[in-house]
Amino acid sequence: MNEITQLLHIDPLLLQALREDIPEEDVSTNAVMPHACPGTVDLIAKEDGIVAGLAVYARVFTLLDPGAKVEFFCRDGDTVKPGQKLAVVTGDIRALLSGERVALNYLQRMSGIATYTHQLSALLEGTGITLLDTRKTSPNNRIFEKYAVRVGGGSNHRTGLSDGVLLKDNHIGAAGGVAKAVKMAQQYASFVRKIEVEVETLEQVKEAVEAGADIIMLDNMSDEDMRKAVTLIAGRAKTECSGNVTRENIARLRDIGIDYVSSGALTHSAPILDLSMKHLRPLTEEEA
Amino acid sequence: MNEITQLLHIDPLLLQALREDIPEEDVSTNAVMPHACPGTVDLIAKEDGIVAGLAVYARVFTLLDPGAKVEFFCRDGDTVKPGQKLAVVTGDIRALLSGERVALNYLQRMSGIATYTHQLSALLEGTGITLLDTRKTSPNNRIFEKYAVRVGGGSNHRTGLSDGVLLKDNHIGAAGGVAKAVKMAQQYASFVRKIEVEVETLEQVKEAVEAGADIIMLDNMSDEDMRKAVTLIAGRAKTECSGNVTRENIARLRDIGIDYVSSGALTHSAPILDLSMKHLRPLTEEEA
Amino acid sequence: MNEITQLLHIDPLLLQALREDIPEEDVSTNAVMPHACPGTVDLIAKEDGIVAGLAVYARVFTLLDPGAKVEFFCRDGDTVKPGQKLAVVTGDIRALLSGERVALNYLQRMSGIATYTHQLSALLEGTGITLLDTRKTSPNNRIFEKYAVRVGGGSNHRTGLSDGVLLKDNHIGAAGGVAKAVKMAQQYASFVRKIEVEVETLEQVKEAVEAGADIIMLDNMSDEDMRKAVTLIAGRAKTECSGNVTRENIARLRDIGIDYVSSGALTHSAPILDLSMKHLRPLTEEEA
Amino acid sequence: MNEITQLLHIDPLLLQALREDIPEEDVSTNAVMPHACPGTVDLIAKEDGIVAGLAVYARVFTLLDPGAKVEFFCRDGDTVKPGQKLAVVTGDIRALLSGERVALNYLQRMSGIATYTHQLSALLEGTGITLLDTRKTSPNNRIFEKYAVRVGGGSNHRTGLSDGVLLKDNHIGAAGGVAKAVKMAQQYASFVRKIEVEVETLEQVKEAVEAGADIIMLDNMSDEDMRKAVTLIAGRAKTECSGNVTRENIARLRDIGIDYVSSGALTHSAPILDLSMKHLRPLTEEEA
Amino acid sequence: MNEITQLLHIDPLLLQALREDIPEEDVSTNAVMPHACPGTVDLIAKEDGIVAGLAVYARVFTLLDPGAKVEFFCRDGDTVKPGQKLAVVTGDIRALLSGERVALNYLQRMSGIATYTHQLSALLEGTGITLLDTRKTSPNNRIFEKYAVRVGGGSNHRTGLSDGVLLKDNHIGAAGGVAKAVKMAQQYASFVRKIEVEVETLEQVKEAVEAGADIIMLDNMSDEDMRKAVTLIAGRAKTECSGNVTRENIARLRDIGIDYVSSGALTHSAPILDLSMKHLRPLTEEEA
Amino acid sequence: MNEITQLLHIDPLLLQALREDIPEEDVSTNAVMPHACPGTVDLIAKEDGIVAGLAVYARVFTLLDPGAKVEFFCRDGDTVKPGQKLAVVTGDIRALLSGERVALNYLQRMSGIATYTHQLSALLEGTGITLLDTRKTSPNNRIFEKYAVRVGGGSNHRTGLSDGVLLKDNHIGAAGGVAKAVKMAQQYASFVRKIEVEVETLEQVKEAVEAGADIIMLDNMSDEDMRKAVTLIAGRAKTECSGNVTRENIARLRDIGIDYVSSGALTHSAPILDLSMKHLRPLTEEEA
Repeated sequence: MNEITQLLHIDPLLLQALREDIPEEDVSTNAVMPHACPGTVDLIAKEDGIVAGLAVYARVFTLLDPGAKVEFFCRDGDTVKPGQKLAVVTGDIRALLSGERVALNYLQRMSGIATYTHQLSALLEGTGITLLDTRKTSPNNRIFEKYAVRVGGGSNHRTGLSDGVLLKDNHIGAAGGVAKAVKMAQQYASFVRKIEVEVETLEQVKEAVEAGADIIMLDNMSDEDMRKAVTLIAGRAKTECSGNVTRENIARLRDIGIDYVSSGALTHSAPILDLSMKHLRPLTEEEA
Repeated sequence: MNEITQLLHIDPLLLQALREDIPEEDVSTNAVMPHACPGTVDLIAKEDGIVAGLAVYARVFTLLDPGAKVEFFCRDGDTVKPGQKLAVVTGDIRALLSGERVALNYLQRMSGIATYTHQLSALLEGTGITLLDTRKTSPNNRIFEKYAVRVGGGSNHRTGLSDGVLLKDNHIGAAGGVAKAVKMAQQYASFVRKIEVEVETLEQVKEAVEAGADIIMLDNMSDEDMRKAVTLIAGRAKTECSGNVTRENIARLRDIGIDYVSSGALTHSAPILDLSMKHLRPLTEEEA
Repeated sequence: MNEITQLLHIDPLLLQALREDIPEEDVSTNAVMPHACPGTVDLIAKEDGIVAGLAVYARVFTLLDPGAKVEFFCRDGDTVKPGQKLAVVTGDIRALLSGERVALNYLQRMSGIATYTHQLSALLEGTGITLLDTRKTSPNNRIFEKYAVRVGGGSNHRTGLSDGVLLKDNHIGAAGGVAKAVKMAQQYASFVRKIEVEVETLEQVKEAVEAGADIIMLDNMSDEDMRKAVTLIAGRAKTECSGNVTRENIARLRDIGIDYVSSGALTHSAPILDLSMKHLRPLTEEEA
Repeated sequence: MNEITQLLHIDPLLLQALREDIPEEDVSTNAVMPHACPGTVDLIAKEDGIVAGLAVYARVFTLLDPGAKVEFFCRDGDTVKPGQKLAVVTGDIRALLSGERVALNYLQRMSGIATYTHQLSALLEGTGITLLDTRKTSPNNRIFEKYAVRVGGGSNHRTGLSDGVLLKDNHIGAAGGVAKAVKMAQQYASFVRKIEVEVETLEQVKEAVEAGADIIMLDNMSDEDMRKAVTLIAGRAKTECSGNVTRENIARLRDIGIDYVSSGALTHSAPILDLSMKHLRPLTEEEA
Repeated sequence: MNEITQLLHIDPLLLQALREDIPEEDVSTNAVMPHACPGTVDLIAKEDGIVAGLAVYARVFTLLDPGAKVEFFCRDGDTVKPGQKLAVVTGDIRALLSGERVALNYLQRMSGIATYTHQLSALLEGTGITLLDTRKTSPNNRIFEKYAVRVGGGSNHRTGLSDGVLLKDNHIGAAGGVAKAVKMAQQYASFVRKIEVEVETLEQVKEAVEAGADIIMLDNMSDEDMRKAVTLIAGRAKTECSGNVTRENIARLRDIGIDYVSSGALTHSAPILDLSMKHLRPLTEEEA
Repeated sequence: MNEITQLLHIDPLLLQALREDIPEEDVSTNAVMPHACPGTVDLIAKEDGIVAGLAVYARVFTLLDPGAKVEFFCRDGDTVKPGQKLAVVTGDIRALLSGERVALNYLQRMSGIATYTHQLSALLEGTGITLLDTRKTSPNNRIFEKYAVRVGGGSNHRTGLSDGVLLKDNHIGAAGGVAKAVKMAQQYASFVRKIEVEVETLEQVKEAVEAGADIIMLDNMSDEDMRKAVTLIAGRAKTECSGNVTRENIARLRDIGIDYVSSGALTHSAPILDLSMKHLRPLTEEEA
């Protein structure tokens, strides 16, 4: 998530989230702290996991207090342990207090996704299979969640309906068959897009590969059928396995020969990673 | 979530989510369906739970196709069973396809929260204790998630930092003590707000109740200390228990005598409720 | 109005106001001043009053010219006299000219409200009664006007329809009586909100206090009835007097025993405080 | 204020004002009225004045409830009397309640400006002098307030810094004299703009008229000097008198021979016109 | 450009363009037409060309007057002749007048691009070469201009920097060579994207094809080198020719064997197609 | 285009254009350059022309990388030659790559307009006739294109429908004649606006001048009729010649005696000026 993406797309979302949490002012803080006061606070891990979103976490504070500084003791993708100090934030205590919840809401959710992705990814290690996310993300949080998947060792499927073609049964029905659908997509879509077709039977697999599909999604197929599909495709297209893939059932896919596995659970079911901000205190005169 | 809230606050978020998913166009659909075509699709439950967010789900389709109609066979708060048909959506098939993911992302998440809230709420049944949510919501989704908590039988804590006063240890430290903090908050905040104070020891409980706090949050206290706190407060303030409350541990709080229990897990850890859209088909001439 | 509120809520409104006044460019200034030129200008009071909004005034100039500086010789809440120099603004003369009207429009209006509030507040001095504003503010200026009320010595009622409950006759009618309305509000609204009920008769006062209302608004009642109401309530709820309260008639309320007086006139009828910017001149080479 | 202006510029401001007042929901109304309920309410004048802004008033309700209807018994510019029924609004009672304050805030302010303008305008009747407003409007309300001035019988000066040229002493100083300033403005500004010059002495009047200024603003001049200025200009330019013109002092300008008088008081000091919404009640079955 | 794209992406741009042209009101029209008046106007072609953007043209009027109707006598992509009547617009004359310029600005520009594209496309007819556009579009008009290219018989290259990978010399330099760059892109980008590499020499062509690039852009190469490149690639990747391709020089590319030709001129140099609105008149009573 | 206009109006449009080109991220650049890397690139002219928009060009880069610097070797309005180095941009190479297309799209278009305007302007040299633009600009680019016209030696007509009055035949028809239309416009419009009337016959010229029109637009008149019109008007109003004025036919207007010539071609038909960014390279350690 480079600085340009942050400027164009992340900052507006962070400001929106801050306005959601602070529609007028932080009454509690403003009641007792009428003036700026430099302070510091630690970011502490409370359970094992993979951290993701540190730049987002930091940006919340530098947006609220341009003079705030965040010193990190880890990087996105690092494994963290309970009690581990991940960062120290220094700035106006009012910004530390007012921004805490939004910063943690992002960081905990992103780290939860990275952690869960890492676990699934580990279960595929050594197979050459790439783990993919889906579009089953929290509304208006996709850019954060897709980034967290990458941090956790997964890869991204298309980011939305505009940058990838995925022809499902209804598309195929409307076109009048797999071959026609693929051809219509090739003609309509920019030539930089690959054409993916979702199939449910071996018959459809055959049609799709013959129609020149770049990727064939095997949707909710049995392991045996997937094996047959891979044999049938014989390298002429990439294969993606999709359908209720979770931590509990992913390992069975190791030896089927598919190229990609996509899992909605990465973003819709990953529990958060528990993190907290502790030891908030004013800076001593010497420190300030 | 009445029509006015929907107009002022929901519609803009839904449009933003649709633009997130469709930054330019739905390439796949537009490639094969150049023209509008009336169709219909069913909304089906795939597991047991409480449904929440039906109006949001429907609104996605009526935004994309003002002529779309959604017929519901259940209402927010109803228990649903696997295989149960919850609704039928009728409209331009292109809107049904392009809106499916966003509509389900909202509905599944909201229903997941309602379901989880309902489970925790049931564990407090008969006690008079009110179950509360927190500000640990998905960024830019709070209005949906707080609504889902209500549907599930919970109640809402403050919606953000502006509409409630909650004095934590750092506020108290800055003010120079509990009594001073409460007084400063009473003077600064609108008189329509209640003053809540977060305490960690019985000593602080005593200070808070004597300072005139309206609500005292017992943060991560032992059951025994909470019991003593309740006795000490003696009805002079409302009591809220907070700190890692989940489905697994909430029952132990039934007999302590507190008024409110808040749980961040309601919104940050509820798994989604699995729902899907099935049987998409064009309308027959007779139906259209 | 701390820096965070300014960033999240004030800056966007100031930019909007600047775009309202400068939809394309300041033709007059740009015609004669093609290049930046450092200059200085004084802010002068032209009548007696209370100044409010200095940070807003300054922000207009630092938005237009990030290098602009404002030196203040007074603070929000100070009494000012005709001819008194309140501030010196230094920056690109083009920013001083282009921003003058918007900066003064805010400052004069806010200072007018603070001045008027201060006058009413003085008439209640020694009584313990708190003077409150209402929602009768200039559209899209509420945050500025409510702040000015605080500067003038008043307090804020709820900021809008979302952060306070005020049950009027139509709400009561819809609910089927005062007791039912209060109960419905307690159940529906977040538990951090107080419940206020507007009443017009002593009978309603009785109902409201028995229903557990936190605040009872005595709307357009005679002084005698208000006295009876206060006796009847006997400290079980806070009392607010409302209805055409102005500088001319507020003193009569001093001895009635009510807790709060609200006055729409604070924001809808306060005349502006006359202020002007004088002695604009380029900096000498030495000064620059 | 035709329908196109309303669509492009008024609706967004009304929605912003509604979101200011209802940042989440109308808690009080939603607590007691979970469902839509058709109702009706009267708009009543409470004092003498000129009404302005009826379309804005109505639009607030039709925005909140597209099915709402407003029947008017008067038109913008009409004189109204205390107790006079101006309109009946019919729609979902929740929209009537939630929109009341915003609708009245606009209508009362606009009617106040129209009333005050009408009073000043009357004092100039028969003289041929045109009464003008200024840019001293409430921030982000200029389009409403300038419209109200027209309804009250006044005319509009430029709407902002971009659509008119007004050269003040600092512009003249920067240009190096009146003649140079006028010439620079003629060259820089679009040829559809008139050039106005603000002068304080007769010497400057002479310079301005000779430089070809279209309009000469006589700023805070004595009546005698204004008379001399008019003679000196001899119809070669239009004349505008400016400077603390109010209801109390405007009549003295009747015989001086100037073409225009501008008064900031029209928009910054007009008290609101008191109006209220009364007799809110559900529709009977027959009416609905 | 289906209805969903229009709702999500076109309407906001049209409203922005209308606000650009009408920042407050259409003074001329409002001065003489205080009330709505139904009228009709013809859209006439003034030169030969291909029309594109009719839905955009119509949408300008239906946005300004929801009751406006547009009857078309041609469709996007049709050839039009001077004097040919393309459409009749019926609606409030004020909307016809106020929207005319914005509607024509879009339609003339889009039709100009379609016409120019059609001319270039014709010069490639029978070759199997696909004509592509580039990112050299008018800022904030890309969606319109890329659509016009399709109408004219061209195809779209990627829509921006996010939905396609195009590795140029600087990317290759930063990566440390063509093979490394392709590999990094395959790993970083979503697997639904094709990898395109821009090359300038035959040596680079070889590297690119061996690195597994999906598309190879031959940038400003001589015809002879392009021929050699095509032979060298031998169908293992698609080939795109790029670099100052215009109507004057495109024909020489017919026989080289490349798959795609891209031309910035399609969008940055196409002259507008002259169209006008004529015969505006009020509807007769009978017609209205 | 001073800094205030840039802040209020240019920056938002540049950010919008950047988001149009980079809806998520620059995949190609981010794939190969995970970290910031200081670099430099030259801006080179590729053909003869007048450069315009250098500040816009530079601003694209400083928006993307606040540390970027642009050193210019020419100024807006300068004549440039093929191969001439116009500027050097230094900054994070990722910002140089990601911003290149948007920066050039603006600069090439603006320079093309300035070049074309300069050519037409030269053809009127010595005549005292002022060359004007029209409202035939690219949607949402008017502020850039009107600026470019000024740089090229032209002047601006009104910027939109709100800041100038131009009465066309339909306005005149609706008003009931030229004299009535002029009078209605004088009464309705701000007195700072000039009234322009479009006429097609000498009869209408006479009516317009007698009605007191400030400017008379001679629309598509023959040269002879224009000469007669000028004689008839005799200096009582300014004259503007309009209608398909291009580089090919403008010279014939030199001796007719009109004051202004307006040409839509300046903005709708000017080809871009070819410019490019070359020699992008990382800074050496010494340079950085």
